[in-house]
Amino acid sequence: MMRIDGRLPDQLRAISIEVGAAPYAEGSALIAYGNTRVLCTATVEDGVPAWMRGQQGGWVTAEYAMLPRATLQRTRRERNGPSGRTQEIQRLIGRSLRAAVDLSALGERTITIDCDVLQADGGTRTAAISGGYVALALAVEHLVRSNAIEVKPALTPVAAVSVGIVQGTLLLDLCYDEDSQADLDCNVVMNSAGAYIEVQATAERVPASRFQLNALLDLAERGIRQILDVQAAALAAVLPNNTMSRVQSP
Amino acid sequence: MMRIDGRLPDQLRAISIEVGAAPYAEGSALIAYGNTRVLCTATVEDGVPAWMRGQQGGWVTAEYAMLPRATLQRTRRERNGPSGRTQEIQRLIGRSLRAAVDLSALGERTITIDCDVLQADGGTRTAAISGGYVALALAVEHLVRSNAIEVKPALTPVAAVSVGIVQGTLLLDLCYDEDSQADLDCNVVMNSAGAYIEVQATAERVPASRFQLNALLDLAERGIRQILDVQAAALAAVLPNNTMSRVQSP
Amino acid sequence: MMRIDGRLPDQLRAISIEVGAAPYAEGSALIAYGNTRVLCTATVEDGVPAWMRGQQGGWVTAEYAMLPRATLQRTRRERNGPSGRTQEIQRLIGRSLRAAVDLSALGERTITIDCDVLQADGGTRTAAISGGYVALALAVEHLVRSNAIEVKPALTPVAAVSVGIVQGTLLLDLCYDEDSQADLDCNVVMNSAGAYIEVQATAERVPASRFQLNALLDLAERGIRQILDVQAAALAAVLPNNTMSRVQSP
Amino acid sequence: MMRIDGRLPDQLRAISIEVGAAPYAEGSALIAYGNTRVLCTATVEDGVPAWMRGQQGGWVTAEYAMLPRATLQRTRRERNGPSGRTQEIQRLIGRSLRAAVDLSALGERTITIDCDVLQADGGTRTAAISGGYVALALAVEHLVRSNAIEVKPALTPVAAVSVGIVQGTLLLDLCYDEDSQADLDCNVVMNSAGAYIEVQATAERVPASRFQLNALLDLAERGIRQILDVQAAALAAVLPNNTMSRVQSP
Amino acid sequence: MMRIDGRLPDQLRAISIEVGAAPYAEGSALIAYGNTRVLCTATVEDGVPAWMRGQQGGWVTAEYAMLPRATLQRTRRERNGPSGRTQEIQRLIGRSLRAAVDLSALGERTITIDCDVLQADGGTRTAAISGGYVALALAVEHLVRSNAIEVKPALTPVAAVSVGIVQGTLLLDLCYDEDSQADLDCNVVMNSAGAYIEVQATAERVPASRFQLNALLDLAERGIRQILDVQAAALAAVLPNNTMSRVQSP
Amino acid sequence: MMRIDGRLPDQLRAISIEVGAAPYAEGSALIAYGNTRVLCTATVEDGVPAWMRGQQGGWVTAEYAMLPRATLQRTRRERNGPSGRTQEIQRLIGRSLRAAVDLSALGERTITIDCDVLQADGGTRTAAISGGYVALALAVEHLVRSNAIEVKPALTPVAAVSVGIVQGTLLLDLCYDEDSQADLDCNVVMNSAGAYIEVQATAERVPASRFQLNALLDLAERGIRQILDVQAAALAAVLPNNTMSRVQSP
Repeated sequence: MMRIDGRLPDQLRAISIEVGAAPYAEGSALIAYGNTRVLCTATVEDGVPAWMRGQQGGWVTAEYAMLPRATLQRTRRERNGPSGRTQEIQRLIGRSLRAAVDLSALGERTITIDCDVLQADGGTRTAAISGGYVALALAVEHLVRSNAIEVKPALTPVAAVSVGIVQGTLLLDLCYDEDSQADLDCNVVMNSAGAYIEVQATAERVPASRFQLNALLDLAERGIRQILDVQAAALAAVLPNNTMSRVQSP
Repeated sequence: MMRIDGRLPDQLRAISIEVGAAPYAEGSALIAYGNTRVLCTATVEDGVPAWMRGQQGGWVTAEYAMLPRATLQRTRRERNGPSGRTQEIQRLIGRSLRAAVDLSALGERTITIDCDVLQADGGTRTAAISGGYVALALAVEHLVRSNAIEVKPALTPVAAVSVGIVQGTLLLDLCYDEDSQADLDCNVVMNSAGAYIEVQATAERVPASRFQLNALLDLAERGIRQILDVQAAALAAVLPNNTMSRVQSP
Repeated sequence: MMRIDGRLPDQLRAISIEVGAAPYAEGSALIAYGNTRVLCTATVEDGVPAWMRGQQGGWVTAEYAMLPRATLQRTRRERNGPSGRTQEIQRLIGRSLRAAVDLSALGERTITIDCDVLQADGGTRTAAISGGYVALALAVEHLVRSNAIEVKPALTPVAAVSVGIVQGTLLLDLCYDEDSQADLDCNVVMNSAGAYIEVQATAERVPASRFQLNALLDLAERGIRQILDVQAAALAAVLPNNTMSRVQSP
Repeated sequence: MMRIDGRLPDQLRAISIEVGAAPYAEGSALIAYGNTRVLCTATVEDGVPAWMRGQQGGWVTAEYAMLPRATLQRTRRERNGPSGRTQEIQRLIGRSLRAAVDLSALGERTITIDCDVLQADGGTRTAAISGGYVALALAVEHLVRSNAIEVKPALTPVAAVSVGIVQGTLLLDLCYDEDSQADLDCNVVMNSAGAYIEVQATAERVPASRFQLNALLDLAERGIRQILDVQAAALAAVLPNNTMSRVQSP
Repeated sequence: MMRIDGRLPDQLRAISIEVGAAPYAEGSALIAYGNTRVLCTATVEDGVPAWMRGQQGGWVTAEYAMLPRATLQRTRRERNGPSGRTQEIQRLIGRSLRAAVDLSALGERTITIDCDVLQADGGTRTAAISGGYVALALAVEHLVRSNAIEVKPALTPVAAVSVGIVQGTLLLDLCYDEDSQADLDCNVVMNSAGAYIEVQATAERVPASRFQLNALLDLAERGIRQILDVQAAALAAVLPNNTMSRVQSP
Repeated sequence: MMRIDGRLPDQLRAISIEVGAAPYAEGSALIAYGNTRVLCTATVEDGVPAWMRGQQGGWVTAEYAMLPRATLQRTRRERNGPSGRTQEIQRLIGRSLRAAVDLSALGERTITIDCDVLQADGGTRTAAISGGYVALALAVEHLVRSNAIEVKPALTPVAAVSVGIVQGTLLLDLCYDEDSQADLDCNVVMNSAGAYIEVQATAERVPASRFQLNALLDLAERGIRQILDVQAAALAAVLPNNTMSRVQSP
């Protein structure tokens, strides 16, 4: 089957990462999954949420938003509080990225990952996680280089992709048109060790069999490995002697 | 391994359903998963959300809340808008129950499933889905008996349960103490045909292998089959000649 | 005149109190005035509102809410702040119960009485006060038994009932249908010493004469005496050696 | 006993009403109870609240606010929604003034009574009711004179006063210092026919006996009769041939 | 050209200032620009906003509101947060009055200027600034007389007026009817030394030439000098030996 | 005097405009004033605000926001309503751009100009106006080319720049560091005919003389002429035969 944009069912869109796109941030990355573009920035601030104080460790949290014309039709700004969808995405990004860093080695600091969608063509939350990891890794590196912390906290690269079933065919990395007609879609977050951090499968129209579920997880894993490579290459370019890139090697 | 409350790893808590617990509602069920108790009511109202008008079909939506002393410590009422967690749960319940009924056969009506947690000992969202299905089925029956609709919309029973990994052991139907120390938890929603409506696996501490993920899905399926039986029995008791109960039979 | 539900004009509905209905709370009572059912819980927390700090004494406050299907038609949840009606009721319950306990003997603690209406058939605020007193008394007892305070603060039982004028007839303890057609209704809160804590008479349609006002107060007093007896019996059952029950005796 | 400001226990403060103080409003009155000064305006607008549409009748509603320096200490503006106290007062004023006019003769119009406290020395809600009646009566007169309605809706003058118990003494029309140390205070709203529209007795410190309650109602009635005279005189001055003033005569 | 109200193009409306109109405030002035009437009060409170703490200096801030019937049609109260227009005006008043006093000599105090419009016929923000200055000067005097500060902070009188272009004619001090048909209006704030604190020129319909802009500034200056005289006279009347009044003399 | 970034006092920063930066919008421009970068999009929607309905004409409105890391320190998202500063800027942009187009020729349509600051180094509101004009012009062109309107509405190019006084020197186009130490700053909006649409001069520290005010306006005019040229060139590149570019020629 030929997809809307000419891809094979198990083919990712073009994935690119521009490191340092927001020069004032401690870490930043502009990530593209095809026409979907998300600007991810990492901000390091002293202090942790009230319920964590005194535990010595740090915290990672995330915010997500779309520019009004990231979408074909204008989307209203969320000025009366984030919508349920936005909060759900923010929580997912935050959980996924907390799994990528040893929080106990951060000191009492909070790293906020802001993910602002400049252009939206499906898969914005998975792009935000993959780009957010790069911003986070750069911010951690910044902490070490500025001597704020002595021992670099361990990082385990994390990436995400969507998979879904459209008219009976299993597809990798859905664009907006595919997503809007999918019977089921599934967002998968994995780390470079091949372990699952999050699986969110949702039947929008037709429930899936166990067999389909397994095939979708296979498809997602293949895509995530490639995205982890793109992350590693982007970080290696700016941090050539860094051990982070080696995590990817088999 | 012996669990906190003496259960085997693959054992559900006592599941019970009291039909008609809120006599003013078109359908209602008070469901218990052990000490977790959720009052589910179904309200039928004319009209659908603006974006659905003119499509002839109906809509199912859900709201979720906890009484302040459903919990060991008092929880504040959400009077300045529902929290991110609450919205996420509401959206999950709504999606799951929309998968249980043929919306196109409802007419331009909205069925609101209110899930109010009277007592919270883990698994409130899965109990809400399982109890919500019973309230929904009763409300659909009410529509037919009151001659509001002629042909009964098709119903596919839906139930949910949580599974998780605690200290390396895979457990079914986690209570609060287990849930709060789980490395990963996973909420699974399935229908009586054995298809997956929703899978939400979240690694809180330790990511899971593919092998573990598969074993958790097996465990969940076993629990969900038993809960579907309890639902069927509860409905059969009040609707003895009803075809709904037959859906469960093999 | 025969009333809608067959009662005599000066007859209460069946009043019952189930002590301990919310096992996680420091005190709780599920009270019924006929079909009206209110779950009252008492939560003890350290600290008092900012304006009371340093005065050594404690505070009692109340919150009130209805489940969406407590009513014949679904009532929206108050998620954008409590309505004027809700706040008025909360303030009334709080004032009434503060009159029941020696605040200065509580220490710097706040007791929050949550009154959640499970079913609403008129008189929910008066049921909340009468049930709230039982929850409060149990929480005070809990403080003493857990050795949090040494000397038990003095308690004066408080109960409430509504009275009104319907088509010229004076009625005790109005149900919803009576309330909605009343010319004037009046909520009365008294203590076990026969003193008035609150009188709120409101002419919805026809103002009342002084003569009528007096007759209504007589009627209310008669009802309140009976409700005080039900409270005393409920508390005596769980606190057999308690001095609280003796307050009722003449 | 001599009161703080030299009055006798059963003596009102100086009551004055300046008619037409807000020239753009359809009716207005600046009322003073001693140092308490409230600007009351009546606005007539077409239409009624949604739930009243099609019933032909009209509606009267009220809003209440204080200027920040109406009080000795600055009071914050209520810009995030009215407080519980404000809403309670607004509802009281609205109910009291709806009892003063034949709503069915107003046509589908809403009259909004705005009561803005310029200076607050106790009794603002009772002054608002008494002044609000004058603004309302002028707005009704305006409707008739501008030929908006043919037959003048019947008006029954309404006035209000507070009474209370301070150190065992029963006092009429409490100023702020008296109010803040009262054991019990009571707001009473009556009409020119001597009937009770609202009685709100609240024991802030010490509950009252039935005997005291009766004595307070006597005291309030005496004060209200005098205030009704001031209202009648104020209206007679601007509406010399008006029948409204005659309602007061014995 | 004759103006709507018979004034010459370069003629102010009658300007009057009643000092002490809100007796509980530390300083107050009821200012009138023709039919526009604004009650200005100054409140002195200890402490400064968080971002200023520890700098020894003080702060001046302003709030602005209109009574509902200050206007010909009723204006809704801003109970869900101040509108954009209100905030813009508040910020303008605050900035203008901070330029009038030596903040560093105030100590860590905040002076809040509340400007409540009792009647609105155009120019409410300029009247608020001119009246606000008088309230501020009185509050500063109060601080000195009550020995809260030893050395009186330097004050530079500030006043404001609007100018505009209506049908090609340049007008001073626009009333509402003129303002609503102006091609351009301009609010000017100056001090008694003839320096510009704020100029806000806005073309509502027709942009202005540089020549017109200059002529408008000339016109505004002429008006502001007269208003400064009225301020000085009002303050001189209550503070006869005060140096404040001398600032105006040439 | 040498400025922080080496510019002459009357020198603009590098101004660039990238047309079409948001491909889904009807018109868009990414404008840079040195390090300040603002993404401006124009959205055309049917309908006008309620108060304009039936007047046949159109409306132009604007929204303004900053990404959290547009600034050196992270700025919170405005999720509980826009701040006073944001609303003031939005209103300024909207007014300025309404002056650029013949609203009566737009039909009952609203054009929303969204200005999102990607990087903030002073002058964001003036960059937003200049970039917003380009987005607006493109959206109007889009309306004509898509045959939505037959006769192209007249456009008058509009641009804006800031000027200010820093340590006695008058500067054009202030960067953030200059702006934060300015005694007075002034935003000026002019059109291609050399007329003033808006002048907002604000003395932050030291009021200005009339002589200084005049010199600032001269400086602003010089800068605005250059920015109008950049706008014209950017539009001419994408609309080569367009008459818009000719408006600039002398």
